Amino acid sequence: MEPEINSERLKTLLDGINAFGRVKDGGFNRTGFSDADMAVRDWFAREMEADGLIVSRDGANSVFGRYGAADAPAIMVGSHLDTVASGGAFDGSLGVAVALECVRAMKEAGFAPAHPIEVAATSEEEGRFGGMLGSQTIAGLVTRDWLESAADADGVLLTDAMRAQGLEPKAILSSARPKGSVRAFLELHIEQGPVLEREAIAIGLPEGATGIVNLHVRLTGIANHSGTTPMDMRADAFAGLAEIAVQIPDMIAASGSKDARITIGKVELVPNHPHTIPGEAVFTVIIRDAREEVMRGLQARFGEVAGAAARKHGLSLSIEENSFIAPVAFDAGLIDMLEAEARRLNLPARRMISGAGHDAQTMTALCPSAMIFVPSRNGISHAPDEHSDWADIEKGAQLMLAALIRLSAG
Amino acid sequence: MEPEINSERLKTLLDGINAFGRVKDGGFNRTGFSDADMAVRDWFAREMEADGLIVSRDGANSVFGRYGAADAPAIMVGSHLDTVASGGAFDGSLGVAVALECVRAMKEAGFAPAHPIEVAATSEEEGRFGGMLGSQTIAGLVTRDWLESAADADGVLLTDAMRAQGLEPKAILSSARPKGSVRAFLELHIEQGPVLEREAIAIGLPEGATGIVNLHVRLTGIANHSGTTPMDMRADAFAGLAEIAVQIPDMIAASGSKDARITIGKVELVPNHPHTIPGEAVFTVIIRDAREEVMRGLQARFGEVAGAAARKHGLSLSIEENSFIAPVAFDAGLIDMLEAEARRLNLPARRMISGAGHDAQTMTALCPSAMIFVPSRNGISHAPDEHSDWADIEKGAQLMLAALIRLSAG
Repeated sequence: MEPEINSERLKTLLDGINAFGRVKDGGFNRTGFSDADMAVRDWFAREMEADGLIVSRDGANSVFGRYGAADAPAIMVGSHLDTVASGGAFDGSLGVAVALECVRAMKEAGFAPAHPIEVAATSEEEGRFGGMLGSQTIAGLVTRDWLESAADADGVLLTDAMRAQGLEPKAILSSARPKGSVRAFLELHIEQGPVLEREAIAIGLPEGATGIVNLHVRLTGIANHSGTTPMDMRADAFAGLAEIAVQIPDMIAASGSKDARITIGKVELVPNHPHTIPGEAVFTVIIRDAREEVMRGLQARFGEVAGAAARKHGLSLSIEENSFIAPVAFDAGLIDMLEAEARRLNLPARRMISGAGHDAQTMTALCPSAMIFVPSRNGISHAPDEHSDWADIEKGAQLMLAALIRLSAG
Repeated sequence: MEPEINSERLKTLLDGINAFGRVKDGGFNRTGFSDADMAVRDWFAREMEADGLIVSRDGANSVFGRYGAADAPAIMVGSHLDTVASGGAFDGSLGVAVALECVRAMKEAGFAPAHPIEVAATSEEEGRFGGMLGSQTIAGLVTRDWLESAADADGVLLTDAMRAQGLEPKAILSSARPKGSVRAFLELHIEQGPVLEREAIAIGLPEGATGIVNLHVRLTGIANHSGTTPMDMRADAFAGLAEIAVQIPDMIAASGSKDARITIGKVELVPNHPHTIPGEAVFTVIIRDAREEVMRGLQARFGEVAGAAARKHGLSLSIEENSFIAPVAFDAGLIDMLEAEARRLNLPARRMISGAGHDAQTMTALCPSAMIFVPSRNGISHAPDEHSDWADIEKGAQLMLAALIRLSAG
């Protein structure tokens, strides 16, 4: 008997997870270390215990269930159980549920893995305190300084939030898995973008995740009367911003790649009054690409374009780099294997790039890692109407099961 | 003896006005029907009484001082005494002070006008309750419905604000001056723009005031993840707005005039988050020109450009006309006379257009009206650092005196 995904069992498991943190708008609120986040982990641990797995938790309150030998290096598979404040039913949860369903299918078929499989439900991936806390803990990336100062948007310290739930924050610093103890990490996740749906392909295989440059830009002109100031005597900060924004496609054509994305998402004008020429435009620029040199090229190009627009409009310009997160490549061997398994199962798949952040990125610091994406309806995520079709989810789960059988076969 | 402007006396008078409503930031707060506004009118009325003028008030609490026959049609000259909340020392006040100084100069020289001269200090020009209340009262433009419903930004009714100062609002409706009772209206005012200063010309002669179309525009796209949504799958409302904004110079070149101005002053993005593609851009567009057909042409052109940008970016578009104020032409004969007098006095002057609103515009409904502008340093107004050089003010006052002598000579 071959292990097979039981779609109904998987659905029931996902529903079980989403019984926690349900909110009125139809979404889910299981932010890291909230009561709902604590409760879902207790429930999920009991589910895995009932399956006969060896259940453990680490200092970050990630929950693990091991199938196979207790002490041998494992294939880790999973995702996160926490959500954003009004998130959907699939982001994170689906990857956790699929991981356990794969193990259940193996057990049911009497498949005994040569290398143990460890289901992981990571903690605080979504960023209440910065994000990826569970995978950073596993990979040994959390520093004492950061741990002691991390706080949420309301100023609540991570250490206080953990202690309020009976957890000892310092245990995070001693929870790193030793090098070699994890053979590989696989994560199934919803795409959170529109590419797979538009192309009607059920499976995406991310080759990597884009890096992110976060710029804070200020154009300063002169706020003046919109009636008395002729067009050619203006120093209109918004006119300068518009001139920069329309050149984004040219910036990407000249210095970017097919994976490049530049977004102006937040704009504040001063004084922001209908009858006053904007004296100041303060805005964010998010530059993403899969390669660091492309990101740096786009950043330089942005600076040139912004400088020219500022000069043309008589504005002063300041550009601050708020943060720079380097792109990450997933393991080429794992991607090849996933692609081959998909072909063998007759599941159309396409290589792509992940534009969002995932635990699997962090895990590349510890072990070879890769991901399976399934389509998101309308590309929507982090919202109650986040949705993935069940037919697509089944295909993703089948591929994950095949990959785990392959990896754990020894 | 020829009447002559006494610069020191004029300065003292302006300082006297600005002893009222001085606030900490260096500016002045004499909003309509505030205590400071009431007090400055009492003081100014006493000044004019001391000068031997026939002093009166109308239902809007505008203050008048007549020099010459009590019952003959008069040349009216003046401006407003109220200010914006943190206004400057010159906007309105200067025109009132120059008007009285001209009469003082005439009196001092023993000049008896054939037509009486009436100094006017109008009320609520700046817009606490909509603006131009004093001149609209004189011109008979205030309606009962408007009067009963007008309120300030805090929801205080005009009628309550007036009654709190012991004034009967209904008196406004019976204060219209009869047709023919005012021969002409002249107003000296600061330019509130940069044109005269840049060209180093002390005197501006507005041929008219621009009209104003006030549009409220909404572009609606799809708010999506800035990382997972490829550039060619976006419906980015801000990208659409930027594409419209950069075409403003082309709109004016194609459908505008040298007086045309288009301003995007207020922009709100939704959700206005750095990592989210803007799903909505709501913004104001102020279109001004000196000719109504040009305004309508620009408005149509704006609609075409916005429609094309919306289609290109996959956005829906709504444009609402919040208000339409038609442009006003000042009296050609008065402008010619002012220009001739300036030439005779060797005062360089340039014809221009007023981009701001003034009592003189409203007064065109009652009588021939015209204005004299003097330069504003850096074009700044409605702010504590509003300033006009005294050498320029003297030239403007000399021209006003010459014009009044000419007009009142019979």
